[in-house]
Amino acid sequence: MTFNLSKSIEILSKTPETLNSLLNGLSDEWLYNNEGKNTWSPYDIIGHLVHGEKTDWIVRAKIILSSERNKTFEPFDRFAQENDSKGKSIHELLEEFSKLRSQNLQELKMLQISESDFTKKGMHPKLGEVNLQQLLATWTVHDLGHIAQIARVMSKQYATEVGPWNAYLGILKK
Amino acid sequence: MTFNLSKSIEILSKTPETLNSLLNGLSDEWLYNNEGKNTWSPYDIIGHLVHGEKTDWIVRAKIILSSERNKTFEPFDRFAQENDSKGKSIHELLEEFSKLRSQNLQELKMLQISESDFTKKGMHPKLGEVNLQQLLATWTVHDLGHIAQIARVMSKQYATEVGPWNAYLGILKK
Repeated sequence: MTFNLSKSIEILSKTPETLNSLLNGLSDEWLYNNEGKNTWSPYDIIGHLVHGEKTDWIVRAKIILSSERNKTFEPFDRFAQENDSKGKSIHELLEEFSKLRSQNLQELKMLQISESDFTKKGMHPKLGEVNLQQLLATWTVHDLGHIAQIARVMSKQYATEVGPWNAYLGILKK
Repeated sequence: MTFNLSKSIEILSKTPETLNSLLNGLSDEWLYNNEGKNTWSPYDIIGHLVHGEKTDWIVRAKIILSSERNKTFEPFDRFAQENDSKGKSIHELLEEFSKLRSQNLQELKMLQISESDFTKKGMHPKLGEVNLQQLLATWTVHDLGHIAQIARVMSKQYATEVGPWNAYLGILKK
């Protein structure tokens, strides 16, 4: 499958609803347990996604499309949610994510990106030269990766409870 | 986290809505592409989940709770969806899954399972002795595993489109 803007937006616009369906109203053990030391809980992951909406995707797309000479992105803070999420319930974070995503998809529309923009370049602080198409494909895959991660983290809470079925449940070994 | 019936039902009752949010209305490439030869597409996975609702979880729970002497389960057909899904749209399969799951959760309620039932046993044709608690934990983990799998299969469609970001997207290596 080659990059397609409207097919990427299909995924990006569905993620808030998917995360709501997956997480809203669950007991604390499902939301706050993680996979062990220095790993993230579903709650942590939603905070990370909120931070991405604020500082990553659209911000970087605008840098690529700008007329600035220096198109180097700010490094993304992978641990920002440790402070940013403080005092917020998962419900509040899901609402915040949903609102920010919807605003960002509006902004994306307003950028009126055409195929000739897809190969315009920016500079990633670690990865070097990247283009707009790669950024938008990564935004999409990043959503799917964190949906998979949340489901995996939750499944691990029952790792020993499944008994002998452990042998058939590949998710518990990932 | 130790097994808890109502916390398992939290997950089991949310899965249809999660799958609807994740998949309904997507373009064919997201729904019918897989990870390569002999792997499943999201469409295949929903067919597999439908078959599980028909032949696996509640059927086996009833065998465990029955007064039959022979409590050996029928082997589960992992490829039944290849025929069963024929001619059905993903929308139809999602509807079917949602309806069956809701019926099965009603049946589960009617079984009025108490803690003393949790350790009652059945015989898995391959894994040997298993108990009711393990069956219900497995049903829950099985849902989460397939949600993660669907997100992973979709993410892989953009494996090369993300360019250098491939290095940061663990989901593409699973």
